[in-house]
Amino acid sequence: HLSKLPYMDTSIFTVMSSLAQKNQALNLSQGFPNFKSDQKLIDLVTNAMNSDYNQYAPMAGNLELRVAIANKFEKLYSTSYNPDSEITVTAGATQAIFTIISAVIKPDDEVIIFRPAYDCYEPAIALNGGKVISVQLEAPHYKVDWKEVKRKLSSKTKMVIINTPHNPSGTVFSEQDMLKLQELLAGTDIMVLSDEVYEHIIFDGEIHQSACLFPDLKSRSFIVASFGKTFHVTGWKVGYCCAPKDLMEEFRKVHQFNVFSVNHPMQKGLADYLQEPSHYRELSTLYQRKRDLFLSLIADSRFKFTPAQGTYFQVLDFSDITTENDVDFAKRLTIDHKIASVPLSVFNTDNLDNKVLRFCFAKTDDTLKQAADILNKI
Amino acid sequence: HLSKLPYMDTSIFTVMSSLAQKNQALNLSQGFPNFKSDQKLIDLVTNAMNSDYNQYAPMAGNLELRVAIANKFEKLYSTSYNPDSEITVTAGATQAIFTIISAVIKPDDEVIIFRPAYDCYEPAIALNGGKVISVQLEAPHYKVDWKEVKRKLSSKTKMVIINTPHNPSGTVFSEQDMLKLQELLAGTDIMVLSDEVYEHIIFDGEIHQSACLFPDLKSRSFIVASFGKTFHVTGWKVGYCCAPKDLMEEFRKVHQFNVFSVNHPMQKGLADYLQEPSHYRELSTLYQRKRDLFLSLIADSRFKFTPAQGTYFQVLDFSDITTENDVDFAKRLTIDHKIASVPLSVFNTDNLDNKVLRFCFAKTDDTLKQAADILNKI
Ligand SMILES: CSCCC(=O)C(=O)O
Ligand SMILES: CSCCC(=O)C(=O)O
Repeated sequence: HLSKLPYMDTSIFTVMSSLAQKNQALNLSQGFPNFKSDQKLIDLVTNAMNSDYNQYAPMAGNLELRVAIANKFEKLYSTSYNPDSEITVTAGATQAIFTIISAVIKPDDEVIIFRPAYDCYEPAIALNGGKVISVQLEAPHYKVDWKEVKRKLSSKTKMVIINTPHNPSGTVFSEQDMLKLQELLAGTDIMVLSDEVYEHIIFDGEIHQSACLFPDLKSRSFIVASFGKTFHVTGWKVGYCCAPKDLMEEFRKVHQFNVFSVNHPMQKGLADYLQEPSHYRELSTLYQRKRDLFLSLIADSRFKFTPAQGTYFQVLDFSDITTENDVDFAKRLTIDHKIASVPLSVFNTDNLDNKVLRFCFAKTDDTLKQAADILNKI
Repeated sequence: HLSKLPYMDTSIFTVMSSLAQKNQALNLSQGFPNFKSDQKLIDLVTNAMNSDYNQYAPMAGNLELRVAIANKFEKLYSTSYNPDSEITVTAGATQAIFTIISAVIKPDDEVIIFRPAYDCYEPAIALNGGKVISVQLEAPHYKVDWKEVKRKLSSKTKMVIINTPHNPSGTVFSEQDMLKLQELLAGTDIMVLSDEVYEHIIFDGEIHQSACLFPDLKSRSFIVASFGKTFHVTGWKVGYCCAPKDLMEEFRKVHQFNVFSVNHPMQKGLADYLQEPSHYRELSTLYQRKRDLFLSLIADSRFKFTPAQGTYFQVLDFSDITTENDVDFAKRLTIDHKIASVPLSVFNTDNLDNKVLRFCFAKTDDTLKQAADILNKI
């Protein structure tokens, strides 16, 4: 009688990070930087604690932080969100996603997701009785077939979840993709959950296609973002959700009884830090350099790749190396070769195995060099 | 079609704290201290940030913190929880409660709660399709009629939620209460959610009756605790959940996809701080002194009271003062007399109005004196 969720395994990130630690392997699996975050940001949080920001933040979030978030939308996307009614600070992007899904997905609602898909969407949908409708994106380009999406829309479709820049594939949606989505949803009341946690990490001059840039999408979208990813502090667990007022009202009904409010000193520190927008503007340059370094170092390896267009993940095709399945190969790499990655099949429809592993390149140059040395020998 | 939760209002704590702020009233409504937390604890978090605890904590929590929590259970309650499999750090007690309920309550499951009840239980139960079965506790003693509980147990009962020391009434469960509960549940597979966030705030030599002290209760209980309440840092949002392995497995299935993990620097700081157990042992003395100060100052007012046995809340009966309902009176006190409290009817079955307001005495002596000056004039 006990198990409401019999099939939910420990997340792949926990599995691979633990295996990495146990085997003293380089950990390029879970997505987090192994370099220091900005001392200025840390000092601002220390100041916040010393200035007594230690009691409950308002349920929707520290007001200065919400205003700073609204300013970001104005500056980067020339669009506005009302800090009072359309922005809520969350305990990381994951909590935002879980809360959105809990707030709006009812039994038998259908939710379209694109696979490979980040692993927290499906359990949240299942927990709320919803049904996952998968659209599989094919390696190596992971392009959406919008005709397939159109076929899969139904009167039961309640939401479409998009994620650009895309984890795990590192691809991005083009303006055409967004327009296509907008067109397909026009006239329906289908909502969009737009997971944009890598919005500031996009390469080769590409432009991030935020759902808020497309008015008819914006009006139906929850946008989710992450300070952890943006400011190299994944352990602080602060993110946010933006949505039009009517959607945000539903969100907050659940948010206030899920976490009530979010770590106050971190919020105040982030609010102060955001007064200087260059802090997120430098991110693409930083990570493009790391991507290029990593790929140049493994150019002569037996792995095949298309350079990531965004995120801090690079997928590598190992089909020339072994016929093992990707989970076995990922484990063997960790145990025998001391380098941990994430096998893509865990994110795919029916665990489709395209012989692809994901490596996180949010690492020091030194770690990337060590990683390349290992990969070049395989 | 949008509203999954049409009836969920903004929580009373947000309502009253906002009203207090707008009217520049003394805020004795929402439960948080208005004095400084320990500088030593703040410095330990600063050290953690400066020592690079800024990336994801393990999903179950920082291991040193889980070990420190296990040590607390050994020292205070002579009982053990395995840090690996039976303790999970949460983003506050609220997130623990929401996650427990989401992990185990299915449609049509019945959950017994004692009213007045803290306001986050019912929405979480409703969101998961469960049914709240209320047992009303009567002012001024708020004692449980265990015969009524027995009558309300059914084959559909999935869980009983208890809360001792009890928010909002300030009463505590006796050993007899716990034994009675244990007896009623013996032989069933009904679970217990034991909300013990005020475990360290208990007065007049009473002993906290943790569910973990009663073996047959322990084996079916999720225990929830809060560092925010214990260390005067409600804004840090760190708490934890303990449960036997089989229950904890279910908890973590949801936890990992709800928040994934919790603020790492705060966890590390708390782990270091817990090396000195006197930090939680001093709490009852501190708050008993505040309770006594507050009550001595209002002894001659027109409010009637029985001293709180635990928590940092004191309920005051205003039936000699006005026939207004408690919500109206609480609002009038805030707007006209500049003191905010929480009306108890919002926590009661059918909003039963016993003419009782709850005041938080986790305030500086100066604030308590100002509060008493106002209350004495009413
Ligand atoms: C929440 S742990 C996983 C971090 C992450 O975003 C990833 O590795 O994809
Ligand atoms: C989560 S805000 C409410 C704080 C509290 O525990 C109370 O006031 O009862």
